[in-house]
Amino acid sequence: MSTQPQQFSPVTSDFAPAITGSTPAAEDGFQAALAEWRAVLGPQHVLTDQATLDDYARSTLPRGTRPRAVLRPASTDEVSRVAAIANQYRVPIYPISCGKNWGYGDRCAPTDGQVIVELSRMNRILEVNTELAYAVVEPGVTQGQLYDFLQQHNIPLWIDPTGAGPTASILGNTVERGYGITPYGDHFAQIAGMEVVLPTGEVVQTGFGHYGNAKAWRVFPRGIGPYLDGLFTQSNFGIVTSIGVWLMPASPHVELCLFSADQDQAVDELVERVRWLLLHRVLVGAVNLMHRNRILTVLRQYPWELMGGRTPMSEEVAQQLARQRQIGTWNGVAALYGTRRQVAAARAEIRRVLKASVDRLAFVSEGKLRLARRIPWLVKLVTGMDVGQLLAAVEPALGIVKGKPNAVSLNTCWWRSKRQPANALPDPHDHCCGVIWFSPVIPMTAGHLREFRRLAEPIMAKYRFECCITLTAVNPRAFDCTLPVLYDADDPEEAQRAAACHQELLSACAAAGYLPYRVDIHSMPLVTSPSSSFGMLCRRLKSALDPNRVLAPGRYVIKP
Amino acid sequence: MSTQPQQFSPVTSDFAPAITGSTPAAEDGFQAALAEWRAVLGPQHVLTDQATLDDYARSTLPRGTRPRAVLRPASTDEVSRVAAIANQYRVPIYPISCGKNWGYGDRCAPTDGQVIVELSRMNRILEVNTELAYAVVEPGVTQGQLYDFLQQHNIPLWIDPTGAGPTASILGNTVERGYGITPYGDHFAQIAGMEVVLPTGEVVQTGFGHYGNAKAWRVFPRGIGPYLDGLFTQSNFGIVTSIGVWLMPASPHVELCLFSADQDQAVDELVERVRWLLLHRVLVGAVNLMHRNRILTVLRQYPWELMGGRTPMSEEVAQQLARQRQIGTWNGVAALYGTRRQVAAARAEIRRVLKASVDRLAFVSEGKLRLARRIPWLVKLVTGMDVGQLLAAVEPALGIVKGKPNAVSLNTCWWRSKRQPANALPDPHDHCCGVIWFSPVIPMTAGHLREFRRLAEPIMAKYRFECCITLTAVNPRAFDCTLPVLYDADDPEEAQRAAACHQELLSACAAAGYLPYRVDIHSMPLVTSPSSSFGMLCRRLKSALDPNRVLAPGRYVIKP
Repeated sequence: MSTQPQQFSPVTSDFAPAITGSTPAAEDGFQAALAEWRAVLGPQHVLTDQATLDDYARSTLPRGTRPRAVLRPASTDEVSRVAAIANQYRVPIYPISCGKNWGYGDRCAPTDGQVIVELSRMNRILEVNTELAYAVVEPGVTQGQLYDFLQQHNIPLWIDPTGAGPTASILGNTVERGYGITPYGDHFAQIAGMEVVLPTGEVVQTGFGHYGNAKAWRVFPRGIGPYLDGLFTQSNFGIVTSIGVWLMPASPHVELCLFSADQDQAVDELVERVRWLLLHRVLVGAVNLMHRNRILTVLRQYPWELMGGRTPMSEEVAQQLARQRQIGTWNGVAALYGTRRQVAAARAEIRRVLKASVDRLAFVSEGKLRLARRIPWLVKLVTGMDVGQLLAAVEPALGIVKGKPNAVSLNTCWWRSKRQPANALPDPHDHCCGVIWFSPVIPMTAGHLREFRRLAEPIMAKYRFECCITLTAVNPRAFDCTLPVLYDADDPEEAQRAAACHQELLSACAAAGYLPYRVDIHSMPLVTSPSSSFGMLCRRLKSALDPNRVLAPGRYVIKP
Repeated sequence: MSTQPQQFSPVTSDFAPAITGSTPAAEDGFQAALAEWRAVLGPQHVLTDQATLDDYARSTLPRGTRPRAVLRPASTDEVSRVAAIANQYRVPIYPISCGKNWGYGDRCAPTDGQVIVELSRMNRILEVNTELAYAVVEPGVTQGQLYDFLQQHNIPLWIDPTGAGPTASILGNTVERGYGITPYGDHFAQIAGMEVVLPTGEVVQTGFGHYGNAKAWRVFPRGIGPYLDGLFTQSNFGIVTSIGVWLMPASPHVELCLFSADQDQAVDELVERVRWLLLHRVLVGAVNLMHRNRILTVLRQYPWELMGGRTPMSEEVAQQLARQRQIGTWNGVAALYGTRRQVAAARAEIRRVLKASVDRLAFVSEGKLRLARRIPWLVKLVTGMDVGQLLAAVEPALGIVKGKPNAVSLNTCWWRSKRQPANALPDPHDHCCGVIWFSPVIPMTAGHLREFRRLAEPIMAKYRFECCITLTAVNPRAFDCTLPVLYDADDPEEAQRAAACHQELLSACAAAGYLPYRVDIHSMPLVTSPSSSFGMLCRRLKSALDPNRVLAPGRYVIKP
């Protein structure tokens, strides 16, 4: 009856798999399900060949999981029938959108033997409302696709891109509660109505959507009665087959605010001041505070030569590389939006608040970039950088804050690799990149950041990895810290060390109260402990919605 | 399997009540439950006397419902035991916070014979965090109480007050998904962790709260795994016993923006321009657009003498009253926050955008009000109003946007009454006020507003009530329209007419797709029709969480 706080137990990486059909009866059921799925989807969209299964088992994590089959439905109705068949034969299915969940599990289910339901063929942009500034998209619609559509039709609306690149799904990131850095960065908060297929096959619209003719479905997501959208994020309660997404009207004027501080301890003061700017809405989108090491992972690969093959990177080499590129120990970026007048007012406040805490503070607009291109010698004189270097650093960021996705952040995945990214839109899988994300939430105070770093940094060092922190203000009161464990996937020893490092990080930080906002497939047993009342509530909901436990077993909601 | 849009059926005002103990066995169960509740709460907090039951049956609606008993637990543990006992003996209980749900049902359950669980004794402010700007409150904490606490301790944080007045519960409004007009006006979006008692008695913390030592519980509400807060709003799935609430840091400078237009059709242009201002974040809180009639209901009672006792108010009389007080046909109010520089920038943009669409546009700061008090003749010269009139109009609004609750909006409840409000904080019950709220959501376009008015206005006229519209921008894409049906509760014929009017309004507007964001206790059968897949989903969740259906039967989630 009384509240029972959940104790954080160490990650058990080999928890019991779900029903995966090891008995002859289950095997018969699987074959029967396959036959029905083939009839519904066409045999070309039910893949069971070894090459495909091998391909889907690849992961940027040290260990992937192997599916039993891959289904590729093309419509909500097909998804509904896929689920009903799975339910009838009790075969576990695992939905993915485009499968770009880099460093969290990619296209893999938490356990071997699930049937992947890939929704990338459902790639229709169902509606774009220019007046009320929203779009309705299926799971297969990528960031790049919606961006291109808006450009081609001269629609002055911007998406909020994540760092996962142009080929990543908008819906997939949203139901995983991902975020970006524009004022629309909290993706859950931009959901404007969902269509969901329940594990038993029924199709439900959330919010006002179940009233056939509701006028405000896409502009007032909560509807009336219980507000259920949250139920279908980070869970295994339903397959989301379309969502409305609010889009940001193009801002008349945009400037990047860039700042950096050379002393490590300067970040404490910065955190306090950034919180003030956010709480007082001088800044309306996110602020990113990036440690030097993180920026280096974007700009280059590990300095194997300079380090003579040793890891981790020494402070001396790190400082040398940072100096070459004029990177501070802590580097901030934020975007200002509005009319020229509003941006000027914000600029003045930011200068007032941040000036004493930073070594460099600059505001960059597209106008200034155009000027820089015309007068390169002046740029060199003022910044010491050549124009190419400046534009390479600033243009992708300016693109992102104006809704244009790019793959620059993905560079990080190549940090410890000895291979080279091959082309403009490289796929981390194709180059055996190694990355495990650790993403704890840190209350936005200097004290919490210090406490967190005191825990995390020695663990990274112990396992010979660099601490590559980015702090993103997911709201004015909290940072999401993304701290990737980057490893060379071609080096089995390093891969094993990376897994151990991530596990110790997660356990130690969670034990100290710094929980992640999202986890990879192997860390999900951490999320809902059977002993907590929250875990019990989740399982009751699971039983009500998925009595045969066929949908994504092991995904966030874990059976006792 | 396929989607089945819910058809809107007319309100059935006498739907089947829940199990209320009409059989002898049920009567025994009720008596046994009472005995156990008395043991847990003390007999003085288990009220069954006729006077109390009569009191709790009163309503500002034309018809209240009569409870069987009133329980007054004082802690989460007591609430948990109350629920477990209810569940054991299958006695329906109905939780209320402070019972100020004026015009939606007050302290009444949807059906007769439920046991009211009033949480007003749980009135502790459990935490105020000045650094991270939030409070944690129990259901009995009122708007006035938290405001006073912050004042007394010189804490520069503001609440977002609703119009329900200083004695209304913060938590109660929030779990009903109410709203205010500051930038923190979307109350659901300010929830920072919930504690919930399930119908079976278990206590659950949402978000990170179930980890005993979570550092970010109050600053990152979503936690990890399914985000369940929405489940416990506008539902009967749990009793919320405390919530975190984000508070707004006091703004260095505040100005009210007041504008009005004399032509009725000017509102169309205003809607389009207000949407631009909100979508571009020139305005960050809500904008209220109020029809002349609505303002009159706040400033005075019905002009019975001028109208010779007839209803509704004639256009001629309305115009005369509006002229006397310099009220336009449509009147807008919004607040600007920030530093002086930011407010000045916003002011300039608003002037540019609104100027051509309004007849009057003024910005009022506290500085200007102080000046007005010192030089009253100048005010008279410039505005034609005497200072008292100006201050009476502006000061309460300026208070609200700075987090100081007042009861001015409640005046509306007295419009058709022939009694007089007695004191500074009058209780609409004590004066037999008659009000039924109708609160449809209207997409923020001129076309939708026209379509909605074309439906609603003739219905109001047909039943001889004034159309007293306020449009509040609940987000940059949608208005909540509050359209009260105000009647004289001392006049049974008018009360009956009001109920019929409200029912026709709701049915006609809902049939056209304009659904309410919230409804009164008698309209709840509208919300989840058994035939829709959404209704089916809600009932599955209900069965999982409340197998004996003891919690608030008939509240939003209706059994088939």
